[in-house]
Amino acid sequence: MTDKTEAKIITAAMLAIGDELLSGRTRDKNIGHLASALTLQGIDLKEVRIVSDDQDEIVAAINVLRQRYTYVFTSGGIGPTHDDITADAIAVAFGIKIDHDPRAMKLLGDHYASREIEFTTARQRMARIPEGADLISNAVSIAPGFSVDNVHVMAGVPSVFQAMVESLLPTLKGGAKMLSSAVECNHGEGSIGDQLGIIQNQHPQTSIGSYPKFDGNTYTTQIVVRSRNQLQIDQAIADIKTMLNKLG
Amino acid sequence: MTDKTEAKIITAAMLAIGDELLSGRTRDKNIGHLASALTLQGIDLKEVRIVSDDQDEIVAAINVLRQRYTYVFTSGGIGPTHDDITADAIAVAFGIKIDHDPRAMKLLGDHYASREIEFTTARQRMARIPEGADLISNAVSIAPGFSVDNVHVMAGVPSVFQAMVESLLPTLKGGAKMLSSAVECNHGEGSIGDQLGIIQNQHPQTSIGSYPKFDGNTYTTQIVVRSRNQLQIDQAIADIKTMLNKLG
Repeated sequence: MTDKTEAKIITAAMLAIGDELLSGRTRDKNIGHLASALTLQGIDLKEVRIVSDDQDEIVAAINVLRQRYTYVFTSGGIGPTHDDITADAIAVAFGIKIDHDPRAMKLLGDHYASREIEFTTARQRMARIPEGADLISNAVSIAPGFSVDNVHVMAGVPSVFQAMVESLLPTLKGGAKMLSSAVECNHGEGSIGDQLGIIQNQHPQTSIGSYPKFDGNTYTTQIVVRSRNQLQIDQAIADIKTMLNKLG
Repeated sequence: MTDKTEAKIITAAMLAIGDELLSGRTRDKNIGHLASALTLQGIDLKEVRIVSDDQDEIVAAINVLRQRYTYVFTSGGIGPTHDDITADAIAVAFGIKIDHDPRAMKLLGDHYASREIEFTTARQRMARIPEGADLISNAVSIAPGFSVDNVHVMAGVPSVFQAMVESLLPTLKGGAKMLSSAVECNHGEGSIGDQLGIIQNQHPQTSIGSYPKFDGNTYTTQIVVRSRNQLQIDQAIADIKTMLNKLG
């Protein structure tokens, strides 16, 4: 277990916050985006949770996830209205103070002044940031996200979430990247499953997944081999191709 | 709290299972579908989790969620390959036996015989069902889902998941439906947030949400009022419209 292929594993969880995700009114677009971005950076997304705009639920989830994973990323609930309660929930979770942050007040104040938009009490709510937090910059709509310890709090609007991910991720330590290669085949999983299980056993340091697609009539399968070592992937892929060639 | 508007609340959680959802390789399409279907049936989806194809993770999540909510719905991991471990994980979670189920073996055996497809050991894996489970029928690809107590186990392929939801949901007890009405407006949340907070306080039996959309230049907002009582919704909507009319 201490051979050269052992690599540093960095883990993460995501907490998506919002009644609208649970009612079906809004289809989440942030989970898949973050998952792909983390994979590229060598950070393993291990768990996602979606909870409602409820302080107790948010606090409970944050306090479990931040203990369990290297990083926690949240989406949603940091806008200017009464149902945006994520920042306050984070302060409660960490037991720290929260108030209007001078850096965020200046960013937003300057932004609205330059556009001759009133800096309402509601808009000032977006400057409520827990004490000691770092700001996450947001090129799209200026109102910042923030980081407290290993918890990174971002917006729910996808274009803003993506802008925050883009500014945040390069500042985080990534691990050895999980690599993957895929083979498509015209066989259903049921035709290849027995042999694929044997190949998985022969290549225990890889993780072999098979993902069926169904067009209404026939199944095809995408076989994906994952590992942090490309040589191990290549060896498993070679065995899979040999198996598929024999099937014809 | 015991007035006529109090209604029976039925709650649910969803557990989506699959490495591919967490790596970003596959974008989930089942959460939003189930969320909408449950809302129509008066079942409140309170929490969603996504975990990897890892027995310990699945068992832990199932055993928390099934205690906490009326129903639990799972997606993924019931196909014919070695990485399909959901059925075995459910058996472990409940501490019950699992084996090839005679009903499922007959369904699948007949299906493959009629198509002259070999009923491989891999395909027989799809008939592994925990003892005492009810089957969930699947008009798309025959291999059934199943229900153990309040946990309903369904496939990850969206067309199959949807077929299972369609056959399962009418058999479940729904609650009083959560109703909602929406108002669209051309104001950003920051312009209406203060007054919307006041209106929320004046209508405590409704839940008022505001959902910003950003087109890259300007924000618009969808205001949604939710309650199990349409009269309460109508009263809140009237106040919101009066507020918006004053803003011009």
